[in-house]
Amino acid sequence: MLEGEEKKTVRIVLCQANPVVGDLAGNRQKAMAFLERARPLKPDLLIFPELYLCGYPPEDLLHRSGFLKQTRQALLDLAGQFNEIPLLIGWAESTDAGVYNSAALLAEGRIVSNYRKACLSDSGIFDETRYFLSGVEPVVITIRDVRWAVTICEDLWDLERLDSLFQKIRSSFDGILNLSASPFYIGKHQKRQDVLSRCALHFGCPLIFCNLVGGQDELVIDGRSMVFGADGRLLFQAAGFEEDLLYVEFEKKTDAKIECKADAGNTSGGGEDEGIAEVWRALVLGTADYVKKNGFTKVLLGLSGGVDSALAVAIAVEALGSQNVVGLSMPSRFNSQQTQADARQIAENLEIEFHTLAIDKVLESFSGLLGSVKGWSEKGVAYENLQARIRGMLLMSLSNQFGYLVLTCGNKSETAVGYSTLYGDTAGGLAALKDIPKTMVYPLCDYYNRIRGRKVIPQSVIDRIPSAELRDNQKDSDWLPEYDLLDQILKEFIEEKWNREELISQGFPSDAVEKVCRLIYQNEYKRRQNPPGIKITPCAFGKDLRMPITHRYRG
Amino acid sequence: MLEGEEKKTVRIVLCQANPVVGDLAGNRQKAMAFLERARPLKPDLLIFPELYLCGYPPEDLLHRSGFLKQTRQALLDLAGQFNEIPLLIGWAESTDAGVYNSAALLAEGRIVSNYRKACLSDSGIFDETRYFLSGVEPVVITIRDVRWAVTICEDLWDLERLDSLFQKIRSSFDGILNLSASPFYIGKHQKRQDVLSRCALHFGCPLIFCNLVGGQDELVIDGRSMVFGADGRLLFQAAGFEEDLLYVEFEKKTDAKIECKADAGNTSGGGEDEGIAEVWRALVLGTADYVKKNGFTKVLLGLSGGVDSALAVAIAVEALGSQNVVGLSMPSRFNSQQTQADARQIAENLEIEFHTLAIDKVLESFSGLLGSVKGWSEKGVAYENLQARIRGMLLMSLSNQFGYLVLTCGNKSETAVGYSTLYGDTAGGLAALKDIPKTMVYPLCDYYNRIRGRKVIPQSVIDRIPSAELRDNQKDSDWLPEYDLLDQILKEFIEEKWNREELISQGFPSDAVEKVCRLIYQNEYKRRQNPPGIKITPCAFGKDLRMPITHRYRG
Repeated sequence: MLEGEEKKTVRIVLCQANPVVGDLAGNRQKAMAFLERARPLKPDLLIFPELYLCGYPPEDLLHRSGFLKQTRQALLDLAGQFNEIPLLIGWAESTDAGVYNSAALLAEGRIVSNYRKACLSDSGIFDETRYFLSGVEPVVITIRDVRWAVTICEDLWDLERLDSLFQKIRSSFDGILNLSASPFYIGKHQKRQDVLSRCALHFGCPLIFCNLVGGQDELVIDGRSMVFGADGRLLFQAAGFEEDLLYVEFEKKTDAKIECKADAGNTSGGGEDEGIAEVWRALVLGTADYVKKNGFTKVLLGLSGGVDSALAVAIAVEALGSQNVVGLSMPSRFNSQQTQADARQIAENLEIEFHTLAIDKVLESFSGLLGSVKGWSEKGVAYENLQARIRGMLLMSLSNQFGYLVLTCGNKSETAVGYSTLYGDTAGGLAALKDIPKTMVYPLCDYYNRIRGRKVIPQSVIDRIPSAELRDNQKDSDWLPEYDLLDQILKEFIEEKWNREELISQGFPSDAVEKVCRLIYQNEYKRRQNPPGIKITPCAFGKDLRMPITHRYRG
Repeated sequence: MLEGEEKKTVRIVLCQANPVVGDLAGNRQKAMAFLERARPLKPDLLIFPELYLCGYPPEDLLHRSGFLKQTRQALLDLAGQFNEIPLLIGWAESTDAGVYNSAALLAEGRIVSNYRKACLSDSGIFDETRYFLSGVEPVVITIRDVRWAVTICEDLWDLERLDSLFQKIRSSFDGILNLSASPFYIGKHQKRQDVLSRCALHFGCPLIFCNLVGGQDELVIDGRSMVFGADGRLLFQAAGFEEDLLYVEFEKKTDAKIECKADAGNTSGGGEDEGIAEVWRALVLGTADYVKKNGFTKVLLGLSGGVDSALAVAIAVEALGSQNVVGLSMPSRFNSQQTQADARQIAENLEIEFHTLAIDKVLESFSGLLGSVKGWSEKGVAYENLQARIRGMLLMSLSNQFGYLVLTCGNKSETAVGYSTLYGDTAGGLAALKDIPKTMVYPLCDYYNRIRGRKVIPQSVIDRIPSAELRDNQKDSDWLPEYDLLDQILKEFIEEKWNREELISQGFPSDAVEKVCRLIYQNEYKRRQNPPGIKITPCAFGKDLRMPITHRYRG
């Protein structure tokens, strides 16, 4: 190959990496490890995602000048270590005026260029104007004669604003680079594809989207970095829900346009995780990262023999390995033989450590003590809650004794209407299913059994009529609408923000609507004290949905 | 008095009212009640605070179109009912473009003018760009020939921005009206006075500040509405921490300037609550409003005989009356006779219902059951936490049985470093002392005894060396630095955002600094599941301080 020909090619590696918030040294080391993997590909540029260096989102760590100073130092150190290949990386840039969400181009041991995110988001889970100033200057970096406009995440989501940002650099770039930390929810990947494809087409140039991957508190960022052609076609996609390295080559053509070499290979394909499969992977990654990044190895769950705890324990085993999962059955006289047997069977199928602690005597001792207060009753909600709380305490006692993290098993349907006992079944460190509607628990169980090729979760568990088993012959539907109906109402109420009138006029039964709306509003106090859960829908409880506890609106 | 003379006077009534978030009908009725009180004063204008009509802050209710529609309807209804006197009132205004934080002038049965808040805040507890668009147009309303520029809260806090907003109306207004919902913290009132006085002086005209009052979740808004002269002097101030009606008269002088008539009287004075006294009132109002606005009548607390629960129960009695407070002593073998006697004495002094439930047998039964798991130990943190959790469960059981709200007693020092048991002493609906450093607990107890004129909180309680009494001879200082030191470190770390290095270089002992910083970072998971508390410092845990749970920063 002649020297002149070779110059027409640009090799770019997207480093879809999983950083830890605040772990500046660790994230820098991980960047070096990605460099080692990429080196044989002789790349001209490496790209790391939005805020990769400090982890995403750092939240109020961004208000600490020490953190910002250390982030800058980590960037300079990385520039020094990394001097052989240019590197574009996301970081939090502190200036006298304020902090920017920036992308620095490191080369020859220093910062040679820096772009500041222009379009900040304050909707949903985002609080960007709490932390960042908006950048106003476009930045173009030139890599082997190919000019790339640099953008960060939301910058691409509003073409009108982007046009205005790009005004100064109109027709002076050949492609667009985008560093993102774009969190997962069902439907988000398709939405991203549409937005990015439209953007590539709009500017008539290739577009590279380098996304972060990993779980961080309630968020899962799903990776699936992508490359689009100038015609808006998706050319390459990195793996979902895991670290990946995506290599792409571009050729500068005679008409000065660049084209992605479709046969460049070395990509992981991806794109196979859709529907229930991607939810499964989000739950597994979110659980694994929450446990490990917080320094835990093992988790502990209450196994009731019900379908929610069966799914939660399957997720835990997938995330951490069966040697790191402990199940605890805590039956009372209200639990049927069948559910107890099912709990044991699930533990056996998953090959996890399993203990049984029957709670009847403790329940008796507790209730006996409470009986000395006039008015205490062994019939009713207080007595039911007491059972759930004894279980929560046993789990927490073992958690404290052995250093296990407790996973709770409550789903989104229960969380929404407060069908749970505060400090009882909600006691724990992570609520893996908090954003999973009950009607999605079943297909997830089926999916898991299918990928395992056997009924790890017994069919009897999946088929049983839901019950909390806190009194004789109790069924969830005694108190709640059937889950099919409940979940439909919840979706419209939470995601579409429909009010009671709208729900009723759409044909939902008015008694169910009245009850569900009232319960959602009334139970914010309970949700506020629940452990964090993994967001998988467009609107999860948590930072996504900031309701007052105290209020009298019931519309 | 001649007709011509009378025209020179403008009578304004500031309605410092306490609305409930989302209670559109109730807030409207309250406005009518204020009108009845004001009517004999023959006012030319009534002013209600920022977002008064829907309550403050409505948070994500503002994302519900039904809520916004009902707010508009409530405003129109109020305009119809209120047609005799012009009324300026804060509301959430929904438009096709988005929502504004607005002030409507109602007169003759309709909205005659509307101002949209220009300067939005996203710092601290505020999320305003999440909800609101910024207004860009200044609005001047004319009341009996006197022209008033309308502003809302933050609008006045940045004179440069305000100058730019006022450019179009330069020298065409005689005074400034400000509708606020400005939350309390220590030092805020003085800060407000400085800002508002400077603003009056800057524009050389009188300034009226009409503040909301009331508790809403973690916030207390303290009222203390104020009127400033053109020279920046504070002329009148409404009461703090309670509803009030402040009447002021202005006279238009021959030089066309207006002057406040200082002898207009009928004001409550106020301004006497400073230092520890205003903290006390904030805690009482915050507790009363949280309990009542959430539909509770009675509260329940664990009384250990310690100083924190003594203060919490005193606040509860002040907020709700002794007939609405129930104390529960739950001794174990680790509690001294003296602390148990003190608990009883406090209950007697406060004349509240009091029960004793000794937990030893339940503890034995629980620990016996846990003993069947190999490795369970009756020495160590797990066993200590078990005791605290048994107490939390007893409180919650009685709460569920009798419908009492449980108040927790943890202070800010404990909350910061996680010196508490999750689901144990943190179990409850409201953490009244969550933002009170331990070193402020003592002066609050002294203050309470002083205003009651006797040792309601016994001196032995105030003098005792702090201990959790979860094992023999335990002292808080076995595990924590002395509270004087701890609270100093916490203040600098939380409010000034100093990091470890800075703290050590300021002379704090490095071992204490290392430990405290580590504990603060590590215990976010616990704080995230704590009940809401009442903000009294510039930076409280909660919406003020949004730290990730998962992170490895220790700087």
